[in-house]
Amino acid sequence: MFEQLGLIGCGLMGSSFALALRQAGLVKRVVGYSKSPSTTEQARQLGIIDVDAPSALLAASGADIVLLAVPVAAIGPTLKSIRELVTPAMLVMDVGSTKADVVDAAREALRDRIGSFVPAHPIAGAETSGPSKARADLYRDRQVVLTPIERTLTAQLQKAQAVWTALGCSVRQMAPDVHDAALAAVSHLPHLVAFAAVNAVQAQPQGDEFLGLAGPGFRDYSRIAAANPDMWRDILLANRDELRRQADAFRIALAALEDAMDRNDGEALHSLIARASQTRGAWRMRAAGTTPT
Amino acid sequence: MFEQLGLIGCGLMGSSFALALRQAGLVKRVVGYSKSPSTTEQARQLGIIDVDAPSALLAASGADIVLLAVPVAAIGPTLKSIRELVTPAMLVMDVGSTKADVVDAAREALRDRIGSFVPAHPIAGAETSGPSKARADLYRDRQVVLTPIERTLTAQLQKAQAVWTALGCSVRQMAPDVHDAALAAVSHLPHLVAFAAVNAVQAQPQGDEFLGLAGPGFRDYSRIAAANPDMWRDILLANRDELRRQADAFRIALAALEDAMDRNDGEALHSLIARASQTRGAWRMRAAGTTPT
Repeated sequence: MFEQLGLIGCGLMGSSFALALRQAGLVKRVVGYSKSPSTTEQARQLGIIDVDAPSALLAASGADIVLLAVPVAAIGPTLKSIRELVTPAMLVMDVGSTKADVVDAAREALRDRIGSFVPAHPIAGAETSGPSKARADLYRDRQVVLTPIERTLTAQLQKAQAVWTALGCSVRQMAPDVHDAALAAVSHLPHLVAFAAVNAVQAQPQGDEFLGLAGPGFRDYSRIAAANPDMWRDILLANRDELRRQADAFRIALAALEDAMDRNDGEALHSLIARASQTRGAWRMRAAGTTPT
Repeated sequence: MFEQLGLIGCGLMGSSFALALRQAGLVKRVVGYSKSPSTTEQARQLGIIDVDAPSALLAASGADIVLLAVPVAAIGPTLKSIRELVTPAMLVMDVGSTKADVVDAAREALRDRIGSFVPAHPIAGAETSGPSKARADLYRDRQVVLTPIERTLTAQLQKAQAVWTALGCSVRQMAPDVHDAALAAVSHLPHLVAFAAVNAVQAQPQGDEFLGLAGPGFRDYSRIAAANPDMWRDILLANRDELRRQADAFRIALAALEDAMDRNDGEALHSLIARASQTRGAWRMRAAGTTPT
């Protein structure tokens, strides 16, 4: 399907995409670039990329598909640096967790060449990082949200849809701001809360002792707190407004539970817990072909 | 090791204990009682208990080991109802998630017979319930905290230690209030937060749409929100004071992150996220013989 992937950002997300694309037989050659030379070198040694390029521009050169797997704050500058090579035949995508800011940055960076860019967010979790953790199945049975704008070329949007579908994803289209509101609710706020929860325990004098008693509930609940700080600083700042709205909604829901506790109102507390328990008990992760809980 | 287990409460925790004890060859006969006759009946049909007793007293009758696997608020009344049968040769344990209140209730219920009671809390997570979900390995590689008091008989404490160790647990002893502070931090507050997080999304007009986009991060983070409302109403109320302290610590940690976001202070935000990421990245669940993350 594609001759050459230009991979900009050879971390976990980018390297997993390259592995998946190759495994699906959709690409012949992968040229990679990372800001950190050791990451690029590692990706080359692992056979994830065929050639390491000395710059984003040179990674994109000759590619018919370009993936930007860089922190959201770096997407604008990176698009700017490759702009002169972007043609209507090229498919350019990102994997950023926020979309309104990415679309704004892309408009500014690519201007009249924005039609080749299809903003993409594969909802695939990973608290590990680096090419050595890459997996060809990272995106399988996951959702991918595409947030095309009015100037996105139909041909490129269809190609994007086809690529992610071929990798085993369920693809949805959505307006950038709707995406950001939803992700603030189900991903960004959970990360913010998990960071706070871990910091709150760690800051206590007996924090280590407490953590030594933590079991499987804590393990799962706090897993996302191990996420990459560079990436998440950018995401939280990029989606600040939606996040603040979600944090307010969370505080209200928390206060309702605490209020029932303070009043020793077992009935009200039970009803609030039951609502959460029923909602979460009935929820299933929506993805292609699987029924995980 | 034991002739007869008196199992009071044939739900997930109790039934799993019976299965494990039997699998370890530590008990010959299991007599069970649950408040709900259908639960007892199901446990009998599944072969988890040999005989169903019509009352807690009759379940304890003739037993040399009694396990109370009932909600924490029911432990006092249940102990009271079996008091006349409790002898110094009998080992009586609970599996409650809070300990100070259980110890207080046990003192009042058992009075001079308190020496046979060893308060126990196996830190084994399960958001499912009922005998049909019971697993002989639920307690394997988990921690169990025993919170003996000054009147606990040494022989019973040693037996308790031996039983849980035989089931594959790592056993720790701790004062009841220290246990409760630790568990408020690493279990009870996480549950409270997870309940609030799910309720906050669900209460929004677009809640269902948002939840449809949630991925593996949300799945793990919110898993404990599916917990049993009866059980968790009791736990949250029983450990209210410690929980309030932990909720305050959490709010301070959350405010620090939000403050950095509001000030658009990327450096401060990065440092707070990095602290959480390092703490959680280095944390390993402490258990016998395993190294899960």
